[in-house]
Amino acid sequence: MKIHPSAIISEKAEIGKNVEIGQFTTIYDNVIIEDNVKIEGYCEIGVSNNLSEGKNIVIGNNSYIRSHSIFYEGSIFGDGLITGHRVTVREKTFAGKNLQIGTLSDIQGHCEIGDYVRFHSNVHIGQKSKIGHYVWIFPYVVLTNDPHPPSNTLQGVTVEDYAVIATQSVVLPNVKIAKGCLISAHSLVTSNTEDNMLYSGSPARKICLASKIRLKDGTRRPAYPWIKHFQRGYPEEIVKFWESLT
Amino acid sequence: MKIHPSAIISEKAEIGKNVEIGQFTTIYDNVIIEDNVKIEGYCEIGVSNNLSEGKNIVIGNNSYIRSHSIFYEGSIFGDGLITGHRVTVREKTFAGKNLQIGTLSDIQGHCEIGDYVRFHSNVHIGQKSKIGHYVWIFPYVVLTNDPHPPSNTLQGVTVEDYAVIATQSVVLPNVKIAKGCLISAHSLVTSNTEDNMLYSGSPARKICLASKIRLKDGTRRPAYPWIKHFQRGYPEEIVKFWESLT
Amino acid sequence: MKIHPSAIISEKAEIGKNVEIGQFTTIYDNVIIEDNVKIEGYCEIGVSNNLSEGKNIVIGNNSYIRSHSIFYEGSIFGDGLITGHRVTVREKTFAGKNLQIGTLSDIQGHCEIGDYVRFHSNVHIGQKSKIGHYVWIFPYVVLTNDPHPPSNTLQGVTVEDYAVIATQSVVLPNVKIAKGCLISAHSLVTSNTEDNMLYSGSPARKICLASKIRLKDGTRRPAYPWIKHFQRGYPEEIVKFWESLT
Repeated sequence: MKIHPSAIISEKAEIGKNVEIGQFTTIYDNVIIEDNVKIEGYCEIGVSNNLSEGKNIVIGNNSYIRSHSIFYEGSIFGDGLITGHRVTVREKTFAGKNLQIGTLSDIQGHCEIGDYVRFHSNVHIGQKSKIGHYVWIFPYVVLTNDPHPPSNTLQGVTVEDYAVIATQSVVLPNVKIAKGCLISAHSLVTSNTEDNMLYSGSPARKICLASKIRLKDGTRRPAYPWIKHFQRGYPEEIVKFWESLT
Repeated sequence: MKIHPSAIISEKAEIGKNVEIGQFTTIYDNVIIEDNVKIEGYCEIGVSNNLSEGKNIVIGNNSYIRSHSIFYEGSIFGDGLITGHRVTVREKTFAGKNLQIGTLSDIQGHCEIGDYVRFHSNVHIGQKSKIGHYVWIFPYVVLTNDPHPPSNTLQGVTVEDYAVIATQSVVLPNVKIAKGCLISAHSLVTSNTEDNMLYSGSPARKICLASKIRLKDGTRRPAYPWIKHFQRGYPEEIVKFWESLT
Repeated sequence: MKIHPSAIISEKAEIGKNVEIGQFTTIYDNVIIEDNVKIEGYCEIGVSNNLSEGKNIVIGNNSYIRSHSIFYEGSIFGDGLITGHRVTVREKTFAGKNLQIGTLSDIQGHCEIGDYVRFHSNVHIGQKSKIGHYVWIFPYVVLTNDPHPPSNTLQGVTVEDYAVIATQSVVLPNVKIAKGCLISAHSLVTSNTEDNMLYSGSPARKICLASKIRLKDGTRRPAYPWIKHFQRGYPEEIVKFWESLT
């Protein structure tokens, strides 16, 4: 265990084996950090508010939280969480394993996130979002939740497995981004989408099957489903399953 | 008074009664913090630059500044300021009471802000902006000020009372967002708007009266003016006034 | 040399004359800071990762890095670097002199940047970007690099000398923003542009010569090339050169 002497660690926090904690980081009371976790400097883990109800935050095994990040209590992360810098994650975020959250991303809490999800830098995940497995969300994407802001009616966005939302797109409340969809950059998605299709524009319109997009790596193979060519860091059984399909 | 031992507090700063200051926070020279204020950790209050002229920053009574926030000297905030994390607020920001500023928001200074204004996360308020009372601005909205960037001609945006600007909209320089307007998500507002209307698109066009939008809470009442149904945290006399109108 | 006692400075770092380092800042091993540099508080300079290969970061003479900023090792900055707060700059960023990087900007590394470039707040510069001299990029602009995300094919954006990209525009992978172009706010640039033209919309279309835009300062002179009227901070020989042209 390597805990920097300037770090401030609550005696109530439960800290596993082989945990590293950086300079000027604060670990508050209701925190469970599992084994082989690295938390860099200037972080706060376990911030409380009136919605977190004093519940624990759990950081799964083999996680890596980069510097200047803030996590509230009352959330649970599976093994292998990896973050960039200055990530903010509010209470009641329930995430599966191998979540990646890029620099400056802001997860507003009260949301569900599956396994192997990737948020690139500076994504904004509104409350009540439900995100499946193997999803990709790119920089400056906003998942909204209020159909007539400001109001007390929160209707989160649903993003299904393998869907991809490209940079600076906005998804309106209650909209479903269906399995395997691709939302192109700078789009505004105003209504539900169909599986495996490409949507583009503001408002976004259905263009074609995402699989019609060809790889620009010289092979001209279909670029979607992306898991058939982009496999770094995914579990072997998933990669094999997709490769077994023609 | 609860000041964390790791905080760095200038002897020149004036700090009121019942003030709490968190770990690793720095309070610089020209700072007046009134009573019952909480400033979390990792903040800087009273940063100086060549435009702040050594003038005080005043943080009103009953304010709450969350961690990792940066405020320059030379600004004045009324009572009840509340911020998220990592807020940056430059010099010569003059704000009324009960301002809320969300996580990652960047107020560029040299602007006026009325009472009970709400900035959600990650808004960008350009210099020379003039914002009325009871305004709402949602994530990734940018209020611009330079009609032909880069130049020395700064023409700020005006946002009137009760107006709402939804997520990822841009307002061009010198444009007036009129009283009670709603700008829908992902719009680009290029010219002045009329009171109480809904605008949408890039460039934004006038769609209809905002009051034609119905609440999705089952009642189908008009969603605008929003103050008629969303009243949490607003002063009683304002709520009663709006309820007295049919 | 004024180094705050709470700063953490590696003995391996090479620090020049008249360098100032603020409270709670960390300077890691592979860091070369030249003369007359000021680094404010809460910064990290020289963060390593598996792509930075233990190479030095070099911060040129007369630079000023504002608080809460993070720089990775393996990058080189010419003299006169100036940053806002909370800037993140990854490895293998090679920049000329007088670069300015605004608050919250995120430079993803593996990119080339010329002299006298200005990034305003919250810009996102994707890997493989190539940026010329005297370029301006405004808030919430994203330079992308993946033509079919996610993939291993990274094709960076090229931005040529004197080009200007206004707020919240997205530039798609492999696109060239030509010399002296102006991309107006909230545009999506999907294909290469021609010198000195104005582009606008989503997708962006060619509108006219940028020089047809007139200054709103009362003179009605052409607003572009901007260097003919906006000269603060640029080298005298460049200003004279442009003034010598009619």
